[in-house]
Amino acid sequence: MELTFLGTGAGVPAKERNVSAIALKFLNNNGAVWLFDCGEATQHQILHTSIKPSKIEKIFITHLHGDHIFGLPGLLGSRSFQGGETELTIYGPKGIKSFVETALTVSGTHLKYPLKIEEVDEEWGIETSHYSVTSALLEHGIPCFGYRVVEKDQPGELNVKRLQEMGIAPGPIYRELKEGKKITLPDGSTLDGNTLIGPAKKGRIIAILGDTRVCENAVNLSKSADLVIHEATFKSNEHELAHRYFHSTAKEAAAVAEKAGAKRLILTHISSRYQKESALELVNEARENFTNTEIASDLAMYKVEKE
Amino acid sequence: MELTFLGTGAGVPAKERNVSAIALKFLNNNGAVWLFDCGEATQHQILHTSIKPSKIEKIFITHLHGDHIFGLPGLLGSRSFQGGETELTIYGPKGIKSFVETALTVSGTHLKYPLKIEEVDEEWGIETSHYSVTSALLEHGIPCFGYRVVEKDQPGELNVKRLQEMGIAPGPIYRELKEGKKITLPDGSTLDGNTLIGPAKKGRIIAILGDTRVCENAVNLSKSADLVIHEATFKSNEHELAHRYFHSTAKEAAAVAEKAGAKRLILTHISSRYQKESALELVNEARENFTNTEIASDLAMYKVEKE
Repeated sequence: MELTFLGTGAGVPAKERNVSAIALKFLNNNGAVWLFDCGEATQHQILHTSIKPSKIEKIFITHLHGDHIFGLPGLLGSRSFQGGETELTIYGPKGIKSFVETALTVSGTHLKYPLKIEEVDEEWGIETSHYSVTSALLEHGIPCFGYRVVEKDQPGELNVKRLQEMGIAPGPIYRELKEGKKITLPDGSTLDGNTLIGPAKKGRIIAILGDTRVCENAVNLSKSADLVIHEATFKSNEHELAHRYFHSTAKEAAAVAEKAGAKRLILTHISSRYQKESALELVNEARENFTNTEIASDLAMYKVEKE
Repeated sequence: MELTFLGTGAGVPAKERNVSAIALKFLNNNGAVWLFDCGEATQHQILHTSIKPSKIEKIFITHLHGDHIFGLPGLLGSRSFQGGETELTIYGPKGIKSFVETALTVSGTHLKYPLKIEEVDEEWGIETSHYSVTSALLEHGIPCFGYRVVEKDQPGELNVKRLQEMGIAPGPIYRELKEGKKITLPDGSTLDGNTLIGPAKKGRIIAILGDTRVCENAVNLSKSADLVIHEATFKSNEHELAHRYFHSTAKEAAAVAEKAGAKRLILTHISSRYQKESALELVNEARENFTNTEIASDLAMYKVEKE
């Protein structure tokens, strides 16, 4: 999995940071892409990446503030114009359907692909062949969700070397053994696949949180995550401002990652008052609570690894 | 008056050209700005200019296609966030009100300034202290308007040199003479202001046309204009494509300017198939019909002069 930060600013676009959007690209899944939020000019940012709009299969919206959704209508239209034909699903809080449908209808945008819009509530969750996604309400001025993406565990690897030492040539038998079946060999002896499979590979866990104050659900969504993406709109000296506007400081974000026993934290949604070097002070503050912290910048890419 | 092209591309944003928007800045009117169309990321383009969103007083929308309106909600929100407090009026075809209001309501965008939205029809027109604006329907796939901005004639200049030769010192009398009044001098003789005022300065005329096939109303709006801004989506060899999609070729745009007896033409809304040098071929084709033609590029600025 590979993350690309398309916009890492807060509230309004600035030259240095665009408004919110994150792309999650599945390297092993035909290059499918999921987007998290879609602020204005997300499609413009995509022009500077290798992401193809036609590969975007799902868009998860954390909340309906303009800096998280105003790029949706344009991106949906361009995806069609550029030949996207496969289904796209948008998940987001109640109201997202009305916004998208009004924009498409008023503008006469006719999509050449099926568009589904699913409104998310606290019971919501989806499961795909390789992943499950759940959500929980955070603490923001309007309903705002965080998303937890859990990769399913992968079966362990078949011990091919051992099989070759036993003189068993590759063929359909390898697949059956890998599925854990018992096989009877030509000499009448049996071979149990389970004895030839290594330990299951644990799936990766990513928590992508929307705008929020520090809250219990942010910790719950981030439990033991390999990567947490948390907003850090302000520095610690502005923690009262952060609280008043339902945002977090960098240090508070780090406390969430620490409390959740997460492995790694990336800060985003940075106020435009912190430019260039001054943004690095946010990381330094966060590292006092959680060492493995980075700060995202626009178009920065991160591989998501199991540690 | 000064024009800044914020987006000169067609349909979808590209690296070289953003989607449609034009800013008209009044140099003599406290720097007020009128926008014509507002495609996605217009507010991002503005970041690279000296235009202040708070100075935007009127936004004229030609038609509701996404590449002409999807930047509106974000710009309106940022104008408020950045301290804009003065009234803003949007003019556009029926449907613009529903689009803007839904976007602002769903996103919880509370503007700190009064927003008016006025839907335009064929009878529509406005008059300000210095300008009048009228509209006419063009020929596009959906209702699309062109706008004609007419500056009111300015009174001629008072012949100050002559007054000084006559020994009349500057004072309130100069204003009265400039207003064309008759003044009695201390020696009992009278002086007629009208004899001391030069010829009235004719106001400038600009026609800013939306997407369209060549049509009679484009010519009517451009009659004797000092500047016509006309779309030129395609080159001449694609005139059938242009017609089918309700667009114009560069040469057709030039024919409109020529037929209207306009002074100057700027081409915009250029298909992304024409990049860099190949876009210049559009100008060359247009100049066969109308010599005084230029092609706009993003962030290009033009002074509008009376020729």
